Amino acid sequence: MALIVQKYGGSSVADAEKIASVAQRIVETREKGNEVVVVVSAMGDTTDELIGLARQLSPQPQERELDVLLSTGEIVASTLVAMALGSLGYKAVSLSGAQAGIETDASHSRARILRIQPKRIVEELDRGSIVIVAGFQGMTRDMDITTLGRGGSDTTAVALAASLRAKRCEIYTDVEGIFTADPRLVPEARALEEIGYEEMLELATLGAKVMHPRAVELGELYDMPVVVASSFGVKPGTIIHGGVSMEVRNKVRGIAHDSNVAKITVVGVPDQPGIASAIFEPLANANISVDTIVQNASIENITDLTFTVARSDLNKAMSLVSPVSESIGARECVSDSTLAKVSIVGTGMLNAPGYAATMFRILYEQGINIQLITTSEIRITCIISEARAKEAVRALHKAFELEQAGV
Amino acid sequence: MALIVQKYGGSSVADAEKIASVAQRIVETREKGNEVVVVVSAMGDTTDELIGLARQLSPQPQERELDVLLSTGEIVASTLVAMALGSLGYKAVSLSGAQAGIETDASHSRARILRIQPKRIVEELDRGSIVIVAGFQGMTRDMDITTLGRGGSDTTAVALAASLRAKRCEIYTDVEGIFTADPRLVPEARALEEIGYEEMLELATLGAKVMHPRAVELGELYDMPVVVASSFGVKPGTIIHGGVSMEVRNKVRGIAHDSNVAKITVVGVPDQPGIASAIFEPLANANISVDTIVQNASIENITDLTFTVARSDLNKAMSLVSPVSESIGARECVSDSTLAKVSIVGTGMLNAPGYAATMFRILYEQGINIQLITTSEIRITCIISEARAKEAVRALHKAFELEQAGV
Repeated sequence: MALIVQKYGGSSVADAEKIASVAQRIVETREKGNEVVVVVSAMGDTTDELIGLARQLSPQPQERELDVLLSTGEIVASTLVAMALGSLGYKAVSLSGAQAGIETDASHSRARILRIQPKRIVEELDRGSIVIVAGFQGMTRDMDITTLGRGGSDTTAVALAASLRAKRCEIYTDVEGIFTADPRLVPEARALEEIGYEEMLELATLGAKVMHPRAVELGELYDMPVVVASSFGVKPGTIIHGGVSMEVRNKVRGIAHDSNVAKITVVGVPDQPGIASAIFEPLANANISVDTIVQNASIENITDLTFTVARSDLNKAMSLVSPVSESIGARECVSDSTLAKVSIVGTGMLNAPGYAATMFRILYEQGINIQLITTSEIRITCIISEARAKEAVRALHKAFELEQAGV
Repeated sequence: MALIVQKYGGSSVADAEKIASVAQRIVETREKGNEVVVVVSAMGDTTDELIGLARQLSPQPQERELDVLLSTGEIVASTLVAMALGSLGYKAVSLSGAQAGIETDASHSRARILRIQPKRIVEELDRGSIVIVAGFQGMTRDMDITTLGRGGSDTTAVALAASLRAKRCEIYTDVEGIFTADPRLVPEARALEEIGYEEMLELATLGAKVMHPRAVELGELYDMPVVVASSFGVKPGTIIHGGVSMEVRNKVRGIAHDSNVAKITVVGVPDQPGIASAIFEPLANANISVDTIVQNASIENITDLTFTVARSDLNKAMSLVSPVSESIGARECVSDSTLAKVSIVGTGMLNAPGYAATMFRILYEQGINIQLITTSEIRITCIISEARAKEAVRALHKAFELEQAGV
């Protein structure tokens, strides 16, 4: 008898009807002879509604209290799934993160899982129950409720799967799997059958937004196969695992893009030690994430420094960088908020340097100007005008033959 | 430094504005130099909404799951009150029933408190925090959430007050205290300054509906003074305690009435052993509460048996009693659903038998027919036509001079 952990996101449990259909899927897995542990998110917009309530009462609610408040959303969903299973004649029991033995540190609103003591889960499984765990939450050693922050329910699911030595972890969401590109941009994009953890990380971080990178990392750490599939459809989805074959790995696996990009250039910077930290420390202190940094070769000790930030951070970033720019004697400080990132992702790609050249050539053939380039071992990213992003993704998808199945 | 336990009902925390005003009242108590433990119910209609959700998923939700679901309502309210206090600059911490150390038996949906281990509450008080406890809930020894059923939050408050040896327990609700009669019927009715536990029990059970009898009994058991007052007004409310002076006790304290009364009469019953149990056992099995039972003196071994049930139970009760009535050879079985109970309540009243005679005379003078009479040591109840209930309550209130203050 295999153990399978399934996670259903907020859109999959948004109302009674959807919960009933989730219960049906759980029963199918059960009827195939598996033990099932289910992790659920809060229903639909519940979390946002609770945050709205909190803001009515306090401009800055205590983090501890906010965590307790938000944790109720997942608890509600977990009991409703258990009831739906009960009405189908199955034994089911809901557990809070605390009852499920998920121990976290005390960093409220962004707690990390320290360990899982799944005694209660195992007992309930042994009694023949399907166990429904409220996602996104845990408990400190002092019995205080915590929430895990972004990607919390995915993380709960993968962590439980690892802790229970499950056969696999299934993440059900509103997409059919990991696509070779955003299907809204590229109609011929297709769901991958399989993908490596690292590749998934690059795709997710770059905007595929299917599964939180934190949960993918955890999957990689424990070598836990993770299946991403639609909770509404019947397609098999994409399996994320470590066993992707060598031949498959030496390919571009997908095209990611992200339109939430703005660029700041500090022009005419005197090239001397301490300049970079003078510029970037205020940004770090303001919790503004700087993505790509490029410094031109210096000419006569004068250089240009360019970096990107999320578009929503641009105004704040400019207000911090402008005075610094002046004080260090730079000529000016300019910004552009009409950019996009387009990336090709595939493990081991950099061992085959032809991919970078091909990418640049394809963009050139489309007449698309590349403003910045960054790379990782398995990714090549070009920053281009947002207006051209769609064309770029389509052209790359075609050129790398991603519409062809089976690779 | 005295410790005061305050309980706020669902209507007192129905929205953000009301919660903010509750926080203000808590702060006032705190600023008078008291330690404060607060018990809250779920906001407004939350509990009904959660039950509605559950019913969408299962005709008969598992009681354990329903308890977990419902317990979130009070948890949400407790965090919001803590946030409101935080925004006023006070240290506040919310605790679930489980965290507050409320251990119950495993009777889901109607659990009884076994003991309270308020270690965490005491620690938080020692840290200078105001402690907000989610009412209506506890935890079994096996770490399962339970709810306490009707009157659960009142019971939580009084039990915590007893366990923490509080100076008093304050129950804030939407009325100004315990009235001498329903002010909607008797405009000159007034809030009592004080009342004994037993008197309160008779008044509450008979329909005053201010505080649940279960919580009153607990107050009596631990001799915990309980103040009932409005959470919106500034009136001092009514104190329920054991120290009511002898002279005050030998009086009618209030007039209770209850319109939810129906009468069933089994006519022409052969008077032989086993008849009563044949009639009442099916009702007990169907969980129908029988209130007043009167059996006429038997004439030629034939008697009439009359009893009352809640009006909402009448149809079900008739469907159970009719076949029994036939099988035991009774002549017929008739019902009347247009009745009301009117009671006068006061400790030690029966030691002064003039009260009963006065009550019957007053009703007679109004031309009101008395259908049934029942009494306890501190209560005389007449069952009359519902159409005359208002007149009866007014006439009794006047005759016993309840509009006069200070008694």
